Amino acid sequence: MSVLQNQIEISDVQRTVRRARRAAHILAALSEDRRNEALLAAADALEAHSAEILAANEKDCAAASPAVERGEMSRAMFSRLRTTEHGIAEMAERVRDVARLADPLHRRLAVTELDAGLVLYKETCPLGVVGVVFESRPDVVPQIASLALKSGNAVCLKGGAEATETNAVLVSIWRDALAPFPDVPPDSVVLFHTREDVAQILTLHDEIDLIVPRGSNEFVRYVTEHSRIPVLGHGEGICHVYVHQDADLRKALDVAFDSKVQYPAACNALETLLVHQDIAPVFLPQMIAQFRAAGVEVRGCPRTLEFAGGQEIVPATEEDWKKEYSDLIISIKVVDGVNEAIEHINRYGSRHTETIVTESHDVAARFMEFVDAAGVFQNASTRFSDGFRYGLGAEVGISTGKLHARGPVGLEGLTTYKYKLFGEGQTVASYSKGQRTFKHRSIPS
Amino acid sequence: MSVLQNQIEISDVQRTVRRARRAAHILAALSEDRRNEALLAAADALEAHSAEILAANEKDCAAASPAVERGEMSRAMFSRLRTTEHGIAEMAERVRDVARLADPLHRRLAVTELDAGLVLYKETCPLGVVGVVFESRPDVVPQIASLALKSGNAVCLKGGAEATETNAVLVSIWRDALAPFPDVPPDSVVLFHTREDVAQILTLHDEIDLIVPRGSNEFVRYVTEHSRIPVLGHGEGICHVYVHQDADLRKALDVAFDSKVQYPAACNALETLLVHQDIAPVFLPQMIAQFRAAGVEVRGCPRTLEFAGGQEIVPATEEDWKKEYSDLIISIKVVDGVNEAIEHINRYGSRHTETIVTESHDVAARFMEFVDAAGVFQNASTRFSDGFRYGLGAEVGISTGKLHARGPVGLEGLTTYKYKLFGEGQTVASYSKGQRTFKHRSIPS
Repeated sequence: MSVLQNQIEISDVQRTVRRARRAAHILAALSEDRRNEALLAAADALEAHSAEILAANEKDCAAASPAVERGEMSRAMFSRLRTTEHGIAEMAERVRDVARLADPLHRRLAVTELDAGLVLYKETCPLGVVGVVFESRPDVVPQIASLALKSGNAVCLKGGAEATETNAVLVSIWRDALAPFPDVPPDSVVLFHTREDVAQILTLHDEIDLIVPRGSNEFVRYVTEHSRIPVLGHGEGICHVYVHQDADLRKALDVAFDSKVQYPAACNALETLLVHQDIAPVFLPQMIAQFRAAGVEVRGCPRTLEFAGGQEIVPATEEDWKKEYSDLIISIKVVDGVNEAIEHINRYGSRHTETIVTESHDVAARFMEFVDAAGVFQNASTRFSDGFRYGLGAEVGISTGKLHARGPVGLEGLTTYKYKLFGEGQTVASYSKGQRTFKHRSIPS
Repeated sequence: MSVLQNQIEISDVQRTVRRARRAAHILAALSEDRRNEALLAAADALEAHSAEILAANEKDCAAASPAVERGEMSRAMFSRLRTTEHGIAEMAERVRDVARLADPLHRRLAVTELDAGLVLYKETCPLGVVGVVFESRPDVVPQIASLALKSGNAVCLKGGAEATETNAVLVSIWRDALAPFPDVPPDSVVLFHTREDVAQILTLHDEIDLIVPRGSNEFVRYVTEHSRIPVLGHGEGICHVYVHQDADLRKALDVAFDSKVQYPAACNALETLLVHQDIAPVFLPQMIAQFRAAGVEVRGCPRTLEFAGGQEIVPATEEDWKKEYSDLIISIKVVDGVNEAIEHINRYGSRHTETIVTESHDVAARFMEFVDAAGVFQNASTRFSDGFRYGLGAEVGISTGKLHARGPVGLEGLTTYKYKLFGEGQTVASYSKGQRTFKHRSIPS
């Protein structure tokens, strides 16, 4: 293990990123079997070196605890920083899960016979170099490293300062585990340490193909504004549930409650509940009571206040419709119908996940067509919007952008495609002169 | 026709873009039949109003001709500006071609049964609002308007100042043609006029989903640097042909000549020819003679000069390997083998289109895996890298970016997808508590 040596070695950001780029060119041609063998070796190495990981983690935790006592670091963040023997076994198991996923590379998206002896293949391939910037949780290191290796990408990691020791040991173990594989370059994973490193990384748009910022909304915005590198991430998650007039009352109560309460800090949690005026008198008193019993602060529009049946409600302001609470707070608005709900969502939503509760297929279809969001649900909690729940296997992140990948993003999001054309010496001149004509016959792939 | 009125109406850039955004929300739900009916009506309207188009175009041409005489506008640009009766019929026919293309919307990319009564559909949908900035050619207006309408997107157009009158009339005719369709909002196409408008448009990242700059490399770079809106375009096209030692001589001569000479101004034209040292003594004298006979200036590395057989060659410098000539100039480098060719291409290429001439399937496969480019070809001219030749139908543009769309981009590039989840009131809590478990059964779509 050579933590210090690694740190010195990778002090020149650009030089290091270029090494990752060269590694990426080699990784792109690695067979599925070799990538999976390397993943399994890395998983074994994590378990074999658990004592070193725990020792490094202990140092990070000891360094962080005064900050917790001074109230500068939340207890939640501190608990995410700490890892255990069990946690390391979990990390290894997740890496083995990734090895078991279907190969995202070399998939044929289309095959076209342009002409006799001129066949075009559209095939998936890696992006190249992916930069991932994340906060405290050290288990992100093997998670991202395994997703990158599986998809043939090199990865530049930058973790939180509070996890410096743990992250450095994890990356060293990972790189050492690749050493017996002469065709897997160790620079397929490189680690950076400081904010200055990140600032430099963001300028390297010729070297890095994608940045995945896994942090606060502010950080995602910072990255988007300070880099020409494409970003996969989400700024905000302002999700809605709309309860239509014909909604099944049980479903409406269950879906809205779960969307808000099951894990309010998640980006796919409910922030604003929209309720059709005709169902409001029956639905709202029960719904508000259920929320209040769970300790949820309820903020409502004037009509919501009417239907509250004397329960404690804060009047909602315009600001409430724009707000991601990420907490046990909900805003409620009574609307005239599905059109007003759609307009409200398209105006205030963050294009993340939007649910309608209705028994009508037609109304649901209308909602789903007109609402502009990555996920549009009927009669299901917004909390289902998640890579694991969608069955994508491992999750790279959630995107509220519309290009490349949208919503929960699996391994596919770390791939692009290339066109491979196999010919026999054909020239374009012979087609433009009319000596030959294109067939353009699609071949089932 | 109300050209002037339109111009005044759309003076407030942000307000206009917002109207386009509202139009986009309506377009997203329009059926395939209605979109195609509207396209055919627009095509007919272009032909019916050809006199107005020609009159406006005559004004633009008259205004531009002094600039041509003063040498401020190239004759090539002037000839692209002028349209004719035949040109208008062509425009209409291209719009009808787009109507005939397969629907890019509502395609099911995946269907997954998450659990009984909880089914997830991944379906294509429009991006929303697309901004397209282009130079003189007025036929771009109906081309882009038709691609946008077919794919359910609203579009903000900004053409060259020299085509102001023609573009304004074309957009007016298009909007008027949509008037009889109450479900097709006329603001699905809006037109801007000035550079200041463009500067404002680039700031509207909350309103515009994609920018397609169709102009010079400098302009594409300007847009990328001045906007947070995703960009579909290509900066440079530095394409290579590598002639391997076992190449069929006839194929090598044909492919390299066509790649360079068939249309040297195109981004997919050849700039640097790489030649294996073992075939160079036989191949280069013939190749150089063929280029010289076609008026191509040849710049060569020292070893190329050796094999030139006394023909006129300019010594190549480091700068030549980085240069997109877009002209009848070629640089030639003799290399030791396929690995040096791959390294040269990955270092100097712009990830556009790269060809290898070889009879070996294995060498071609190696080249295709290791070269990082949108198109990797064996024994075919780089000029085949084109939406029409690939059989994509209409072409939105060519992308040298890797995210979202790569290489020649058809209608698919103007779409994204949304996840539609249909449930029966399911909550995430019941899964996290272990009361229910996911099935994640993929259903053939």
